[in-house]
Amino acid sequence: MTSPSLLARMQAVADRTERELERLLPVPAGAEARLHEAMRHAALGGGKRVRPFLVHASADLFDEEGPAATVTGTAVELVHAYSLVHDDLPAMDDAELRRGRPACHRAFDEATAILAGDALQALAFGILADEANGMAADLRAGLVTGLARAAGHGGMCGGQQIDLEAEGCRLDLDAITRLQELKTGALIAFSLDAGWMIGKGSTEDRHALAGYGADLGLAFQIRDDLLDLTGDPGLVGKDLRRDGEAEKATFPSLMGTDEARAALLELRARGCARLDRFGDRSMVLREFFDYVINREL
Amino acid sequence: MTSPSLLARMQAVADRTERELERLLPVPAGAEARLHEAMRHAALGGGKRVRPFLVHASADLFDEEGPAATVTGTAVELVHAYSLVHDDLPAMDDAELRRGRPACHRAFDEATAILAGDALQALAFGILADEANGMAADLRAGLVTGLARAAGHGGMCGGQQIDLEAEGCRLDLDAITRLQELKTGALIAFSLDAGWMIGKGSTEDRHALAGYGADLGLAFQIRDDLLDLTGDPGLVGKDLRRDGEAEKATFPSLMGTDEARAALLELRARGCARLDRFGDRSMVLREFFDYVINREL
Repeated sequence: MTSPSLLARMQAVADRTERELERLLPVPAGAEARLHEAMRHAALGGGKRVRPFLVHASADLFDEEGPAATVTGTAVELVHAYSLVHDDLPAMDDAELRRGRPACHRAFDEATAILAGDALQALAFGILADEANGMAADLRAGLVTGLARAAGHGGMCGGQQIDLEAEGCRLDLDAITRLQELKTGALIAFSLDAGWMIGKGSTEDRHALAGYGADLGLAFQIRDDLLDLTGDPGLVGKDLRRDGEAEKATFPSLMGTDEARAALLELRARGCARLDRFGDRSMVLREFFDYVINREL
Repeated sequence: MTSPSLLARMQAVADRTERELERLLPVPAGAEARLHEAMRHAALGGGKRVRPFLVHASADLFDEEGPAATVTGTAVELVHAYSLVHDDLPAMDDAELRRGRPACHRAFDEATAILAGDALQALAFGILADEANGMAADLRAGLVTGLARAAGHGGMCGGQQIDLEAEGCRLDLDAITRLQELKTGALIAFSLDAGWMIGKGSTEDRHALAGYGADLGLAFQIRDDLLDLTGDPGLVGKDLRRDGEAEKATFPSLMGTDEARAALLELRARGCARLDRFGDRSMVLREFFDYVINREL
């Protein structure tokens, strides 16, 4: 069971993120209104807002769960949202559904979806760097640097490229672990690191969070693979059973389902042990790990 | 005739930009090497590097034509390069040629081209924000903010959306002027503004450069439209006569070819008059305006 207080916290961050997105996304206007609508379709009203939650929870370890965490979490979410729009395109995963609604290129069209993704990425960096967000200039620049690294060729985009090429040729466990580290792990790791940057923690704190984040990211992916195999499409709100159809190697397909479930528990034990230095403050991130490995959507 | 010294300057900036791109683009490695190769295909070895030139020429008005201008020009060029990759996609302009070589999605594939564009955009913001580039933190953050605005929904992406929707329905002169201001004007204006930011000019300097940039950007587009109509495909190195095929409204098609040529001269006179406050220092930008309205590629 996920604790009610964790769910309330997650909901509070999701609400904050939604309000911030509402404030920052363009109101449809002008001859380019369709682009604005596509950006809103892609970014608003959905998602668990896992990455903003991690920014907040990490910053909170250092008593800094304020506006800086909100804008930073929103920027990471914009990058995540753009990546889903592009990943869903016909040339990529050709997905129909996303968050229980038509994928962006289905609700609009392919060209608009490509542009909406591009514009969401620009917006992410723009809001992070903007002095109007109240953060010090060196923090803003540092967050942009980190987000760019996590989102780019050495992170999310690099992972998606490996994922593209993985169809047909069955990768081994090392290869899909690296794929996950880049494709989803980099943005999760950045979310935790961003909280550390906002909170001005120590080098040891940074390493502890990086260790927790690596284990969490891997667990997140294994759980995703298990859900793709056994989840309820109505509940999950996106296309399932795609990995099997594409003959993609996944953690459960390589390790076996039982071993994959066992790995989740091992990762949880190891990841949470990294948080010991933060004492009781780390309760939220510990509970969140439980949530990740038990979630049904 | 374009002055030999202007061409030498343009070549020097192009060389610097090329070296900087070589230094900053990933060396193909790992399972995602194809992404790296596509990024290099899209960004290296081509283009007039107009935007980096404008950053340098603008910064030079304030005696600041150093490494800051080089990294900033390179960042703008990365955004320009990514936009060409995405604009050339089948869902957009479906172009075969770019800079005399196969468009990125033809040299690689569509999915890789989408990702390469995405990763080039992330890299642009990353290199601009990175403290390793030696700029002060508030300058780095300010440049990211400006570039994000110029590249995003209120700039380049917004303009490309209008352009997409312009096919079939013939826009009027006001509408294509706004299209141009967003699609190509925003990045040109930012290039000049970036030089001003680097050089720490006055508010009046900024306005003068903005006025010059608006006229230059419009002239650039009119010249582009004229070249599409009358240019030599072998020389220009990209697909021509596409506007007519797509029944797109262009400046020459709405104004008439002679009037479009006359407008180039008017824009030049007005734009260059904005530079009077800079005295002899502005010679490079004046000569560049001549180059833009006379260029054959």
